[in-house]
This record gives sequence, structure tokens and C-alpha cells, in this order.
Amino acid sequence: MEQDTQKQLKEYRDSIDNIDAAMVFLLSERFKITHKVGVLKAENTLLPADKSREAQQVSRLRKLSKEADLDPEFTEKMLNLIIAEVISNHEKIRDSKKTS
Amino acid sequence: MEQDTQKQLKEYRDSIDNIDAAMVFLLSERFKITHKVGVLKAENTLLPADKSREAQQVSRLRKLSKEADLDPEFTEKMLNLIIAEVISNHEKIRDSKKTS
Repeated sequence: MEQDTQKQLKEYRDSIDNIDAAMVFLLSERFKITHKVGVLKAENTLLPADKSREAQQVSRLRKLSKEADLDPEFTEKMLNLIIAEVISNHEKIRDSKKTS
Repeated sequence: MEQDTQKQLKEYRDSIDNIDAAMVFLLSERFKITHKVGVLKAENTLLPADKSREAQQVSRLRKLSKEADLDPEFTEKMLNLIIAEVISNHEKIRDSKKTS
């Protein structure tokens, strides 16, 4: 690889790494909040999953993705991964409340 | 649902929505940069995938996740989803260069 190419590639990768770190910290904040949602739902015997809320989230983020020139299919895949993890966490919170 | 619970749930969801919007815009920036990486790789006949770079990314983000109290397994799943999309985009860029 030529030195210019190598330098340019490193510059791009440094920016990608910064963005990834920002996303990790945002995700951490997001899971802190969904943990509180899980506790609230368990205390009020609300279901861990909420299909109507999920549909709203998908629709809103698809719209935002189009505005940001991001593939809405990809955003939906990411959101589904996050939601699946959140529901699994909510179920764990609910089950721990049942047994305590 | 009691009014207090409903109000609290809305407050949490408003914050989740803000974080999700921030992540969409960060992802958009990330894909802008990886697009440039794809072009650079195609122009310099570098392979779309780079296993050693990927291993570094996984290891760094797992470490950052632990610091941020985020499940590193989850972060790795997210990163794998992103990397798969990026490699697929790089391959498309490479193939379009071949035919043009």
C-alpha cells in the first residue's frame, strides 16, 4: 500500500473509531433508561413488549434515516437488534420481581 | 395504567427517542466515511474486508463497553451487523469500478 493511501485510510479509521466510541456510550445511556422502563413495567404489571410503541419507533427511525441519507432497511435491522435485547432484559427484570 | 406511570414512561421514551435520533445521525456519518474507505480500497485494489482491522475494532469496543457498563456481547453483535453492511457496500463499490 502506498504511503498516501495508508495515511488517508488511517485518517478515515480514526474518525470511524471516534464515532463507534460515541455510539457505545450512547447505547450505554439507552440501556440505563430501558432498565428503568423494565422496572416500571414490572412494578405495574405491564407487558415487556409493546408492539404499537415498536411500530412507532420503526416508522420514525426509517423517516429520520431517509432524511440523513442512511439506508432505512439497515436502521430497522439495528433497531430490531436493540429492541430484542431490551425485551429480553425486561423479561429478566419481570421474572426476578416474581421470585423476590 | 396510572397517570404517574404513564407520565414517567413517556419521559423515559422521549429520552430513548432522542438517543435513537443521535445514533441514526452518527450512523449516517459513519457510512459516509466507510463509503470513502470503499472507494479508496477499490482504487488501490485493496480487499473489501480486513480481518485484522475487524479484530482490533471488536477488541477495542468490547473494552470500551465494559468501561461504559454495557454488555460487550451486545456491542459485538451490533458491530458485526455494521461491518457486514460495510463490506457488502465495499464489494458493490469494487464491482462498479470493475465494470466502469
